[in-house]
Amino acid sequence: MQLYGYFRSSAAYRVRIALNLKGMAADHVPVHLVKPGPLPAYRAAVNPQGLVPALESEGDGLIVQSLAIIDYLEERQPDPPLLPQGLAERAYVRAAALLIACDIHPLANLRVLRYLKQELGQEQDAIDTWYRHWVEDGLARLEAFVRDSGRSGAFLHGDRPTMADCCLVPQLFNARRLACDLSGFPTLVAIDARCADIEAFSLAHPSVQPDAE
Amino acid sequence: MQLYGYFRSSAAYRVRIALNLKGMAADHVPVHLVKPGPLPAYRAAVNPQGLVPALESEGDGLIVQSLAIIDYLEERQPDPPLLPQGLAERAYVRAAALLIACDIHPLANLRVLRYLKQELGQEQDAIDTWYRHWVEDGLARLEAFVRDSGRSGAFLHGDRPTMADCCLVPQLFNARRLACDLSGFPTLVAIDARCADIEAFSLAHPSVQPDAE
Repeated sequence: MQLYGYFRSSAAYRVRIALNLKGMAADHVPVHLVKPGPLPAYRAAVNPQGLVPALESEGDGLIVQSLAIIDYLEERQPDPPLLPQGLAERAYVRAAALLIACDIHPLANLRVLRYLKQELGQEQDAIDTWYRHWVEDGLARLEAFVRDSGRSGAFLHGDRPTMADCCLVPQLFNARRLACDLSGFPTLVAIDARCADIEAFSLAHPSVQPDAE
Repeated sequence: MQLYGYFRSSAAYRVRIALNLKGMAADHVPVHLVKPGPLPAYRAAVNPQGLVPALESEGDGLIVQSLAIIDYLEERQPDPPLLPQGLAERAYVRAAALLIACDIHPLANLRVLRYLKQELGQEQDAIDTWYRHWVEDGLARLEAFVRDSGRSGAFLHGDRPTMADCCLVPQLFNARRLACDLSGFPTLVAIDARCADIEAFSLAHPSVQPDAE
């Protein structure tokens, strides 16, 4: 398998963690999303959508969208699972992952921040405030959701990492990079710290990727 | 089961379609998201997150996030399926659904449009342009993704509706409401028209909900 990614892409980071947790090998192929050259070549040769991550998987072709890739990995190699047993438990894990992937991440994406600057003429201060607003608002809802559920343990669900943790860790990495205030999210921060001690997470960290700057 | 929704919520609309396609009965409980009274009561009594849709399901408690709810319905009652057979096919359907749920819908959400107006002081024209920009950009990518895949038929995947169609129809409804230009998306528009002829879709339409205005 080849995983097309970019060290700083939060969505690619999620998939790197999932692959590591499952012990699945993939060649990591960096696609630089900011430099002018690599993206057109990637569009032409691999993924016309021009987005990462994308997983090229023997026999199954190109799989896109990070959560679809993680579900694909889960179905392809169920063990160790990234979803718990039990319908309600699985729905909780999916909801936590989607809260990050739908309610937080899209608003803090590079292309959105660029639009605020270029099309709406916003100053950097207003853009940073926008970023922190949506990230902190979403994390506050996630913290409450997890706490109210009574389902978290060492991880967002019980004592094994799930696809929800695969989404949490990259989101907190990004939140720190933009100096968000995480003091209101002790449950999330503690889980993130536990994940940092696990190789599947630490080896997926942006700073140790071959294309890290 | 009780489905807490709002006639105009795109995410609730997705779940209404999924329930109908599966022939699963649910009491539809409207929560008015705009009037001042209903939301605090809903937060206090049902869902502290204050979001719709939320599905109260006997034995499994409250399930949130529209795609997590649809996956829950799929696992609870697999027939008729909203995901095809085959790992690559399933990943394609999930990716199409996520392209809408992560890349399009969050940027055109009410709370985001409000922030643009109230916090960033944008005029209505600029807000409408923002809306159309993200919706048209995302739909263009979806049109290309579907066409390139060679997997669409009467519906986004082959000749049966899937969870991807559950997401497409509400997104196009919203796009039309804000006068987006859909002329570049003939595949999506044709599939949407076919869905409109199916009761599972037409009975889920916002205009025929009990709380429609």
